[in-house]
Amino acid sequence: MSSHFLHNFLHPKSIAFYGANNKGAGIASLQIMNLILSGFKGNIYPIHLNDPQIMGYKAYKSIAEVPEVPDLVIIVLPPQIVPKIFKECGEKGVKHLIVVSGGFREMAGEKKNTLTEEVCKITDDYGMRFIGPNCLGFYNNWIYPNDNISAFNTSIWERLKRGNFSIASQSGTLSSHIWFDPENLDLGLSKSLSIGNEANIDIVDCLEYFKDDDTTQVIGIYIEEIKRGKRFLELAKEITKKKPIIAIYVGGSKASKRAAMSHTGAIAGNYKIYDAAFKETGIIKTELVEEFLDLARLLSDGIYPKGKRIGIITNSGGPGAMLANRAEKDGLIVPEFSRELQEKLRNATSPTASVSNPLDSTFDMNLFNYYVNLPKLLMESGEIDIIIMYGVFGFQDVLAKYVKNEQIAKFAEFDKPTSDSKQPLEKILISPIIKASKEHSIPIVYINPQNYSSPWSRRIRESGAVLFQLWDRPIRCIAKLCDYAEYRRKIS
Amino acid sequence: MSSHFLHNFLHPKSIAFYGANNKGAGIASLQIMNLILSGFKGNIYPIHLNDPQIMGYKAYKSIAEVPEVPDLVIIVLPPQIVPKIFKECGEKGVKHLIVVSGGFREMAGEKKNTLTEEVCKITDDYGMRFIGPNCLGFYNNWIYPNDNISAFNTSIWERLKRGNFSIASQSGTLSSHIWFDPENLDLGLSKSLSIGNEANIDIVDCLEYFKDDDTTQVIGIYIEEIKRGKRFLELAKEITKKKPIIAIYVGGSKASKRAAMSHTGAIAGNYKIYDAAFKETGIIKTELVEEFLDLARLLSDGIYPKGKRIGIITNSGGPGAMLANRAEKDGLIVPEFSRELQEKLRNATSPTASVSNPLDSTFDMNLFNYYVNLPKLLMESGEIDIIIMYGVFGFQDVLAKYVKNEQIAKFAEFDKPTSDSKQPLEKILISPIIKASKEHSIPIVYINPQNYSSPWSRRIRESGAVLFQLWDRPIRCIAKLCDYAEYRRKIS
Repeated sequence: MSSHFLHNFLHPKSIAFYGANNKGAGIASLQIMNLILSGFKGNIYPIHLNDPQIMGYKAYKSIAEVPEVPDLVIIVLPPQIVPKIFKECGEKGVKHLIVVSGGFREMAGEKKNTLTEEVCKITDDYGMRFIGPNCLGFYNNWIYPNDNISAFNTSIWERLKRGNFSIASQSGTLSSHIWFDPENLDLGLSKSLSIGNEANIDIVDCLEYFKDDDTTQVIGIYIEEIKRGKRFLELAKEITKKKPIIAIYVGGSKASKRAAMSHTGAIAGNYKIYDAAFKETGIIKTELVEEFLDLARLLSDGIYPKGKRIGIITNSGGPGAMLANRAEKDGLIVPEFSRELQEKLRNATSPTASVSNPLDSTFDMNLFNYYVNLPKLLMESGEIDIIIMYGVFGFQDVLAKYVKNEQIAKFAEFDKPTSDSKQPLEKILISPIIKASKEHSIPIVYINPQNYSSPWSRRIRESGAVLFQLWDRPIRCIAKLCDYAEYRRKIS
Repeated sequence: MSSHFLHNFLHPKSIAFYGANNKGAGIASLQIMNLILSGFKGNIYPIHLNDPQIMGYKAYKSIAEVPEVPDLVIIVLPPQIVPKIFKECGEKGVKHLIVVSGGFREMAGEKKNTLTEEVCKITDDYGMRFIGPNCLGFYNNWIYPNDNISAFNTSIWERLKRGNFSIASQSGTLSSHIWFDPENLDLGLSKSLSIGNEANIDIVDCLEYFKDDDTTQVIGIYIEEIKRGKRFLELAKEITKKKPIIAIYVGGSKASKRAAMSHTGAIAGNYKIYDAAFKETGIIKTELVEEFLDLARLLSDGIYPKGKRIGIITNSGGPGAMLANRAEKDGLIVPEFSRELQEKLRNATSPTASVSNPLDSTFDMNLFNYYVNLPKLLMESGEIDIIIMYGVFGFQDVLAKYVKNEQIAKFAEFDKPTSDSKQPLEKILISPIIKASKEHSIPIVYINPQNYSSPWSRRIRESGAVLFQLWDRPIRCIAKLCDYAEYRRKIS
C-alpha cells in the first residue's frame, strides 16, 4: 500500500460533495452520477442548503453536520464561495479536497482574483491538500483490486476496461473525453487524474505516485506548463528507465500560449527547451491526441521492439509502398530480405508475389499461409524486429454479403477458406502468431481497412492482437516506440 | 456525352469475362460477383473452357462464340495466356479490355518477361485500348444517371454513396480498399479507376477524362510514377483551376522505390522534383491515406475557405489549446478576436469562459447558445474564414446511459436540454448553422469524441455537417485546403 498522499485521494471510503442537485444537468450532478455509475462503494454525503436528499443520498446543510470526517471533499461551486468552504472543511478535519470549479488564476482583466492564494493559505493552515481548481476529478479503476467491475470515478459516464495506463492531465478532456469511445480504444485504464490549475498538487506529485504504483506501467501526461522543472526532469529520467511516459505538451505557438493562459493560467515556456528536455529524459512526445492514445495502447501491450528493422507483409502493393515510404522517412529500417529468406518466401507465395521487403503476396486465398506461415518465416529469420501486416480482411464477413444476393447464393459454390477444423478462425489464424510473436519477442501489428467493429476485426482484437484500420498511424507510433526502446537500451 | 475513349470503358452495355468460375474465391469470381452486386444492367458473357454456366450466366468457350461484340472484356488469367486472348479479342472486333492479372513488367530476375510489349503490340495492331495489367477494374457510380442504386463496379462488394469524387490509382487498394468502411467515410464516389501498370492507358488519360466529366468535381490520384510528365503537369495546371487534385505520391525512400518497382514496375523519380511540380500546379499532396480521404471529403463538400483565419470554439480548454497550437504550426492564422467581438462573446457566455480565440465557453448546458449563437457571432464578425468546433456531445445519448441506472432514474429530475420544440434536436442545433455557414461562406467543422456512429454523431452527419471524432486530422486538412484555395485565388 502506497504511503504517497495521493493514495488517499484515490482510495476514499467516504466523499462529501458540494454543488450537486437532483437536476441531471451541471457538472456537479454529472460527477455524482458518474460516481454512482462507477459502482463506488463508500459513503456519499451531498452538501446542500435546501434539498434534504440528493440522488437518493441524505443531504447535509454543511460539512459540520456530516456524521464522519470524509476522506475526500469534492467542490463544484462558484469560486467566491470556495475559501469559506475550505475553512469549514479544515475545521471538520478534512485532509483531501478536489476543486472542480474554474474561475481562479485563469481569469484575466477585471475578473483577475486572488482566490487561489486565499485557498492555498487555508489549505496550508489546516494541513490539507487539494487538487484543482478547474479539473474534472479522478478515475481509479483499481480502487477495489479484487472487483474489476466497480471503480471510483467522477469524471466520465463510461465504465472503462481495467489496464496499466495512467494519466495525469492539466486538461480534463485529455483525462476523460478521450475515453468517450471506449469500444474502439482497445486500451485499458488504471488511473486518470485531472489536475487542472495545479494550485496545490502538480504533475510532479502525480509522477511520484505513478512511479511506485504497481498497477501503472505506462504513463500519459498533458501539460501546458511545468511548475517544478528540475524535479520533473529528475523524476522523469528515473521513471522512463522502467515505465514509459507519453507527453502532450502544448506550446510553441502564440495562439496556444493564449489558450493555455486562459485555460489553466499557464505561462507556456520555450518550446525548444521542452523538446530538448523530453528527449534527454526519454519522454515520448506527441502533439496528436490519436497518437497519444495509439502509443498508450501499444506500450500497454508491452510492445518494445528490439530494434528498428520493420518487416512489411501485404497482399496489396499500394499499402506496401506507402508503409515502406513512411517507415523509412520516420526513421525505421526496411531491410531488403536476405537471399535465403527470399528463397523461403518465394516457395511460400504465388508467382506474382514480391518477396523482398515489403513482402507482397498479391492475392492469396490460402489464409493459413498468409496469416501464419509468412509472418513466422519473418520472425524466424532474425532479419526484422517488428512486423506490420496489411490486408487481414474478414473474407467470411464479405462472403455473408455476397450470399445475400439471390443470384450469387444460387450459383456460387464457395470453397471453405481454411481447414475443416471446428475451431474458430481466429484460433487458427491469429492465436499461433501471437504465441510466436511472444516467443521471438517480435511484435506484430495488423491492419484491416474494414470497419473497426466489423466481426472479423472484433475477433482479431479480442484475440489480443493489435489492430489498426489504416496504415498511417501505426508506422509513426512504431518509430517512436523504437526510439524509446533504444533510449532504454542505451541508459541501462 | 463525353467523346473521350475512357467513356466507353466506363459505360459498357456488354462485358465478356475471362477467368471467373462458380467457386467464390479468386479475384475473377470476386469481380463478377461485384458486378452482380452492383446492379449492372448490361449483358455478361463469362468465357470458360469447361463450365457451361458461370454464376447463372451462359458461359462461352471462346470470345468468338459470344453472340455480340462486347463493349468491354475483362481478363483475369495467368499472364502467359493474355497475348493469345488479346489476339482473339482483336479478331472479334473488341476495342476495350481490362487486364486484372499481374505478372507483367513488375516481374524481376528469372521471371522478367516481355509480355507487356507483346500485348501492347497486339493492342495497337487491332486499334484496341486496355487498362492494366495488374489492376482491380472500375467503379462507375454514374453509369445510370437516373438510377442511383445501380452502378457498374467490379472492384468492391460495397455499394457506395454517389458523389463527385473520382479516383485514378496505380494501386487497387487506393481505388477500392479505402471504401471498405463506407458507413464511416461520409464521402460519395463518382468513379474509381484502378489503372495498374499503365501499359496502355495512364493517369494522364484519366485526368483528361475527369477534366470534362460533369459528375467529377474532386479528383484523387495515387502515383508511383508519372509516365508523361510534361503533359501531366500541363493538364494538372489546367484542371486545378476548377477541380482540386489530391495526390498521394509514394517516393523518396529506398524501400518505397523497391516496393514501387515490384508493385507496378515503376521507376520512382526524384521526390523533390515531384514535390515542386505538385506545388507549381496546385496539386494537393499527401502521404497519408486518412488525409487523402479527409481532403476528398471536405473538398467534395465544397469547402474552400476564403482565407486562413480559423475560429476555434470549444467547451474544454485542452482541445482548444491543442487545436490552436497545431493550427498555427500548420500555417493557419488564429487571430485574437477584436474587443468588439470579445464583448459580444462575453455577453453570450458564462463568467468562466474565455472569449478570445480559442473561444472556450467552458461548461454551457444552454445548447442553443453553444451550437447556434456562438458560431453565428463568429460568422457575422468578419474576423475569421473557417470555424472548428469541439465538444458537440450527444448529451441526450449520455442521458440514456445515466437513466439505465436505477438509482439515477429514481431520483434525478432531468431538465430538457433545449426548448420544448417538437423538432428533432439537429434541426434546432445544426441546420441553422449549416444555413448560416452557406450564407456567410464560412465553413464549419465539428468534433465529437464520442463514437462516430453514436446516435448524435450520426444525426449531425446526416444533417449534412462535417464531423470528425478527434481534432488532429481536420486541422491539417484545413491548412491544406486553405493553401489550395489561396493558389486558386492567385492564378484566377
